[in-house]
Amino acid sequence: MSDIDSVLLTDLYELTMLEAWFAEGANETASFEFFVRALPSSRNFLMAAGLDQVLQYLESLHFSAADLAMLDATGRFSTAFLASLEDLHFTGAVEAMPEGTVFFKDEPILRVTAPMREAQLVESRVMNLLHYQTLVASKAARIVLAAPGKQLVDFGLRRAHGAEAGLLSARASYLAGFTGTATQLAGSLWGIPTFGTMAHSYVQAHHSEVEAFEHFARSQPHNATLLIDTYDTEAAAGKVVELGRRLARDGISIRGVRLDSGDLAAHAEQVRAILDEGGMRDTTIFASGNLDEYRLRDLVECGAPIDGFGVGTRMNTSADAPYLDCAYKLVEYAGEPRRKRSEGKATLPGRKQIFRCREAAGRIEEDCLALAHETHEGAPLLGTVMRDGQRCAQPPLDAIRAHAARELASLPARLRVLNEAQPFRARLSGPLEALVARMDRAA
Amino acid sequence: MSDIDSVLLTDLYELTMLEAWFAEGANETASFEFFVRALPSSRNFLMAAGLDQVLQYLESLHFSAADLAMLDATGRFSTAFLASLEDLHFTGAVEAMPEGTVFFKDEPILRVTAPMREAQLVESRVMNLLHYQTLVASKAARIVLAAPGKQLVDFGLRRAHGAEAGLLSARASYLAGFTGTATQLAGSLWGIPTFGTMAHSYVQAHHSEVEAFEHFARSQPHNATLLIDTYDTEAAAGKVVELGRRLARDGISIRGVRLDSGDLAAHAEQVRAILDEGGMRDTTIFASGNLDEYRLRDLVECGAPIDGFGVGTRMNTSADAPYLDCAYKLVEYAGEPRRKRSEGKATLPGRKQIFRCREAAGRIEEDCLALAHETHEGAPLLGTVMRDGQRCAQPPLDAIRAHAARELASLPARLRVLNEAQPFRARLSGPLEALVARMDRAA
Repeated sequence: MSDIDSVLLTDLYELTMLEAWFAEGANETASFEFFVRALPSSRNFLMAAGLDQVLQYLESLHFSAADLAMLDATGRFSTAFLASLEDLHFTGAVEAMPEGTVFFKDEPILRVTAPMREAQLVESRVMNLLHYQTLVASKAARIVLAAPGKQLVDFGLRRAHGAEAGLLSARASYLAGFTGTATQLAGSLWGIPTFGTMAHSYVQAHHSEVEAFEHFARSQPHNATLLIDTYDTEAAAGKVVELGRRLARDGISIRGVRLDSGDLAAHAEQVRAILDEGGMRDTTIFASGNLDEYRLRDLVECGAPIDGFGVGTRMNTSADAPYLDCAYKLVEYAGEPRRKRSEGKATLPGRKQIFRCREAAGRIEEDCLALAHETHEGAPLLGTVMRDGQRCAQPPLDAIRAHAARELASLPARLRVLNEAQPFRARLSGPLEALVARMDRAA
Repeated sequence: MSDIDSVLLTDLYELTMLEAWFAEGANETASFEFFVRALPSSRNFLMAAGLDQVLQYLESLHFSAADLAMLDATGRFSTAFLASLEDLHFTGAVEAMPEGTVFFKDEPILRVTAPMREAQLVESRVMNLLHYQTLVASKAARIVLAAPGKQLVDFGLRRAHGAEAGLLSARASYLAGFTGTATQLAGSLWGIPTFGTMAHSYVQAHHSEVEAFEHFARSQPHNATLLIDTYDTEAAAGKVVELGRRLARDGISIRGVRLDSGDLAAHAEQVRAILDEGGMRDTTIFASGNLDEYRLRDLVECGAPIDGFGVGTRMNTSADAPYLDCAYKLVEYAGEPRRKRSEGKATLPGRKQIFRCREAAGRIEEDCLALAHETHEGAPLLGTVMRDGQRCAQPPLDAIRAHAARELASLPARLRVLNEAQPFRARLSGPLEALVARMDRAA
């Protein structure tokens, strides 16, 4: 599916609108802002992610000869319009929050300012990229908060929604504080630590569990995590102890065991006791199986002796809130603020900035949503990340991850809980409120 | 993100297991089956999809020089093992249900039979591909059942989980009975009909709604669907009537209007009346905005005069059930059936077949899950689709779509409803039950 890099991965209406703009000869400067209209009830904050991929996309935007041939084949577009696409590139500016920044309802996390045709064309894919990584980082951040100090590994490739989701969720969860991923390609592309154990099939295919364990441990002499729930978990833990003694004579150690079914807390207690009695105090217990922040909180609260968790499907699909009510809306065109007034979907006009005030300890105290030209106390969250189609220097992934950790630490206590809290909302500045009122009166 | 075609888009453990198999010099024939352990409570049936992409993946499976260099750079793998990957290809067989087939709990929809290393390596991506399209086809099929005879268009690219999800959900929903998609690339790749209207930004950027409508209609003289909810829906419908009269003199017709907010049924009633009074009886009403099968059922039941629906996010993310509890499990190795007995996750051993019995009218009556060598009344659902790594002829997408429509028509009435029904379950054949019992006794 390498076709996903084609510029035609867009909604047809972007193209028909482009043709209409072309036909009327208009292409003034437009500003679009990406924001989330309302947080899911199970989210008290969101974490911005996906900017790096958006900038890559904008930098490489173009219509290849194959793209133009495919458009021509639809019979929908005029020759003159198709010719106008041949040298279309993104020449605009982008302002955005750094990835890993915590944000709330109505706060733009990215603004595209460019000639209308460019700014409109990129809508579908910019949304697709920002929405998914932000969705996953926001979910993963909750998991990080629920299991402080635990090893957390993304296990979700198999049930992520397609290849790109598998890959990008490894990045988004690492950024939000996960320890690493099982997805090899994410490790190779972004330097994310990778983790792997073994599958039940490996155990099943051998004549006995202990034979499987021994072959695997010899193949990974200091790195093997043995999956012990294929038949009887505690019996398998006993076999691991016996094997551990035998392998120790050859200088081989067993790094850990993995539980993947049943009552994880109860099994972990019993397995820890068996390992400890067998002198394997350094052998860790890793658990997986339909985990999310709620189950992790319960396991941590009951003191289950589990060192690390593989968290997959429910994180990569953000299962309790699988999408965000996000939008990419025109806020200014040809120098004039613009507003949509659709029922329940009205937007705030004008190019905006968020000013964040913090308490002495660094905790977020108040956000003020203002027009971009205003000055306010607090730190502005949006900064320039692309000028004239060229990206400005971006922080490496580990710096983004460190920023995300500081952001989580700066959350007010009431927003750090997993349960629904009183929503945090930015206050609107006086000039922004006045602009809204003026535009509504003029309507 | 063209990297998604790399074979390294897999879980690290597939590679560490491969190395362990390599180290022990074993590579007997293995059979793995993909099935769903339990249906989400909001699903009474599932629809198989994604086979075409699985076969493409298997046919092109290889380690490129870049892949091997990335693996080498991890420092985890021996030189001899990496060398063994250089000429690895998929040489096995695949048996599967045709795409578009309805299936139920525990029924394998695909079996891979190949040397262990190949059959194991492909686990992560085969699951990733089959899971997502099956998830979406199953959701889309419910939407099709809820709105018979209505035009249904996939609008979900922007909030699909990444690029591949955007693309594949267009295919899976079309296969399940949608009319088409807004995603241009899906149209170009697979010949799926594409649909597009206009965005609010287009209206907002013009000095007036009517100016925007006129420019757009002139640019799409017989194909324009005008978005009429940016400011005041009924007022906009009035403007459309006026404009329609004016444009008719130039031979231009307005094909439709779109509603995207507020009470869709109420707006549709009023807009229909305005259009009809204005003599625009052929101008259709299209609606969008957070739609799913439940909202479509309500709109259809109350007789809202809406001709077509754009269904996006909730379909592409399968929002009420964003994942399936699917597995890819070893059922036979080196000629012997294999079984996993983990708590709550025990699997059925042996290579299996499903025999489906139908009533005279074609309705599904009973499924029998049997061992592959058995003979039973009813039609076997799994057939060979790949031999020796080469795919057999596969039906084109429109034939798959016709098959899916017949499958939906063959659902018993109690399974066609949107609400939870008594689950349909295959009965196990005598020989399969006997095998399970024998293996449990031997354990």
